[in-house]
Amino acid sequence: MKVPKSGEWLVPLPCRSDKANTGGRVYGIDTWLTRKFLQTIGAPPLRVTLWDGTELATPGSPPVIGMVIRDRGALWRLLTNPLLHFGDDYSAGRVEIEGGLVQFMETVYRSMDQTPKFRRTSDPAAYRRHQPKLNSLAGARQNIHHHYDVGNAFYQLWLDAEMLYTCAYFPEPDASLEDAQIAKMELVCRKLRLRPGQTVVEAGCGWGALARHMVRRYGVTVRAYNISHEQIAYARERARAEGVEGRVEYVEDDYRAITGKYDAFVSVGMLEHVGPDHYHELGRVIDRSLTEHGLGLIHTIGQNVAAPMSPWFLKRIFPGSYPPTLREMMALFEPLEFSVLDVENLRQHYAKTCEHWLDRFEHHRDRVREMFDERFIRAWRLYLSGCVANFNLGTLQLYQVVFSRPTNNLVPWTRSHLAAFAGAS
Amino acid sequence: MKVPKSGEWLVPLPCRSDKANTGGRVYGIDTWLTRKFLQTIGAPPLRVTLWDGTELATPGSPPVIGMVIRDRGALWRLLTNPLLHFGDDYSAGRVEIEGGLVQFMETVYRSMDQTPKFRRTSDPAAYRRHQPKLNSLAGARQNIHHHYDVGNAFYQLWLDAEMLYTCAYFPEPDASLEDAQIAKMELVCRKLRLRPGQTVVEAGCGWGALARHMVRRYGVTVRAYNISHEQIAYARERARAEGVEGRVEYVEDDYRAITGKYDAFVSVGMLEHVGPDHYHELGRVIDRSLTEHGLGLIHTIGQNVAAPMSPWFLKRIFPGSYPPTLREMMALFEPLEFSVLDVENLRQHYAKTCEHWLDRFEHHRDRVREMFDERFIRAWRLYLSGCVANFNLGTLQLYQVVFSRPTNNLVPWTRSHLAAFAGAS
Repeated sequence: MKVPKSGEWLVPLPCRSDKANTGGRVYGIDTWLTRKFLQTIGAPPLRVTLWDGTELATPGSPPVIGMVIRDRGALWRLLTNPLLHFGDDYSAGRVEIEGGLVQFMETVYRSMDQTPKFRRTSDPAAYRRHQPKLNSLAGARQNIHHHYDVGNAFYQLWLDAEMLYTCAYFPEPDASLEDAQIAKMELVCRKLRLRPGQTVVEAGCGWGALARHMVRRYGVTVRAYNISHEQIAYARERARAEGVEGRVEYVEDDYRAITGKYDAFVSVGMLEHVGPDHYHELGRVIDRSLTEHGLGLIHTIGQNVAAPMSPWFLKRIFPGSYPPTLREMMALFEPLEFSVLDVENLRQHYAKTCEHWLDRFEHHRDRVREMFDERFIRAWRLYLSGCVANFNLGTLQLYQVVFSRPTNNLVPWTRSHLAAFAGAS
Repeated sequence: MKVPKSGEWLVPLPCRSDKANTGGRVYGIDTWLTRKFLQTIGAPPLRVTLWDGTELATPGSPPVIGMVIRDRGALWRLLTNPLLHFGDDYSAGRVEIEGGLVQFMETVYRSMDQTPKFRRTSDPAAYRRHQPKLNSLAGARQNIHHHYDVGNAFYQLWLDAEMLYTCAYFPEPDASLEDAQIAKMELVCRKLRLRPGQTVVEAGCGWGALARHMVRRYGVTVRAYNISHEQIAYARERARAEGVEGRVEYVEDDYRAITGKYDAFVSVGMLEHVGPDHYHELGRVIDRSLTEHGLGLIHTIGQNVAAPMSPWFLKRIFPGSYPPTLREMMALFEPLEFSVLDVENLRQHYAKTCEHWLDRFEHHRDRVREMFDERFIRAWRLYLSGCVANFNLGTLQLYQVVFSRPTNNLVPWTRSHLAAFAGAS
């Protein structure tokens, strides 16, 4: 990469006193540090406004995206550890973005990935560097509580009516979120070839929508595990309300506590919280739970290269989380000799899903404000915007993996059982 | 595993003098060694007839499968290294099988996999143990010549009319081999979303059928590489005969010599011969060949666990070959940050394909006999039967993997472009 020398690529613009002048006077050292910061992150096409209104910009086409740094402390913090401090300072209102947060993140991520310092390259031990062993039985409970027990009322504001907090499946890009979440559940059920009378175990069931869908539409019985207390309470309540409580059992427990034998094993959006150190353990749970001709499906966020999540995301949003590469996922299957039958990458569907969530979240901002402070709102906006950006850029993937025992010769012969469905919900 | 004591599980049967009495007298040591051999391979339900007609069998239901050992040397060899010597002694006629070779291999493989000595467990360095570095430029040529330059006339006897020597795709299990091979080519083309005017590079093109199919049916131009001299000569001749020689170029060269940029990269049945040590190299070839929005497809035999092929197979049939696990395949994609979009496992289709090949081979046995000696015929029968058994048992898999660059947002939104096709050819 050619990084322009600081003298030629940062153009100081006239001082604009109408904004951001909350941090005192701007000195030469401040503009020098700003240039240094932009250089460090690969000189993206950005306009930076400092606290007294001083503007700097990369040359070339005028940048449509602007970043306002409201005080010297924030600037210093950005320089020392942008991946941690940008999030905190944005949440605190010490940094503002003009021209769209998603666009900003896409621009900056794209640029950072071209720099030696921030380039995401595959490192087999990556997930350990920022991930202490957080996913023990007790640690997992704490991590899940941090995110999922924020309050059902909050999630109800911006999730679909069925409360699915995982990637939807849009038969057409302009399908509604509600339809796309139902289509996702259908896709999962069809991939598992569910038939009436079968038994299913679900590891990590969220608010329980998939389990209820399976019971209602496919005539199976489901035992669904989750360690989020609030989610389990909600799931049980809805099962009662829908009159299916006899056919779905929600168990407030860890996936490691699963007992019994089932015709299908399904886990949608849990693996991200398991941690590669525990994949072997999860593999053994699946091995002891699946009948001879059972099918399994794991739906998870993933990555093309093994790299840790940003420290801000790990600290503030999802402690203990790690989206695996397909290579890392194989630790689930290879030691137990499972056959991988089908992998589908729904990356773009997750970008679309997160766009819907972000829109709904912003739409209900006033309602959210009644529940949480501004810092929470800004952190959440940043998180959802970052997800849109990362799925758009291909930094994150979404894998659906179907598998069986190696000797299972009753697996679907072709994908014709999915065909009628692939194009329409 | 509970291995019965030799005294209780091997029942000597009355001597049958009507067969196999070619190796002199059978002593106590011979029956002891036979028991030992059966014990070593996990005591499968087998009847063993020694060279003077002495029979031994495992107790329980009378075994339908029999093995005739024609001399003491063969017995010794089986005991010391069954995975190498069974093949050679079967080829030499020193061992005979009664009750079906495929059934015999399935029975024995299933049994061996239950023994500590022969159990196939995943070993990350497995492929190196029996694989010297055979796949250098010169080594690869030698290996490919060994198998593929046996003579086009031989392969024409038992392959389909288009001469495809890779897994077919049977929309229905009872489709003909000819239809299934055309369906396979269609499946590959659709997964690559070929459009008129596009350019395709093919690594390892066999007798060139896929390249010609793409040109004829999809209006693309193809450059196809192969280091088998006989295959390339045949491919060029057929392209001329079909009047498509201006739109398909067959290059007699290694995949490492590929130059140019293409809208699609395709490789069907070559990766097995590349060797994991060279995946990174192949990944870089793909990286430099694929346009920004190009799609790639790799179709290869694979395994659930990283284990070497049998030494007999490596020595007599496919030197330098290794079917990777999905984990190992990721060495192609992860370092270059390719996105894996779709993986389909066609294992059962390959069992079916090999069954067709074996049937046709046996049907034309007299014609084959005019070309080769009995040892070759028996070795080839064993190889094809072993393939049927291994795909049936799930020891081998068949992966089709579709991939793109990570930033490609023009990848198919769903699988609807495959849907109309999945159930009918």
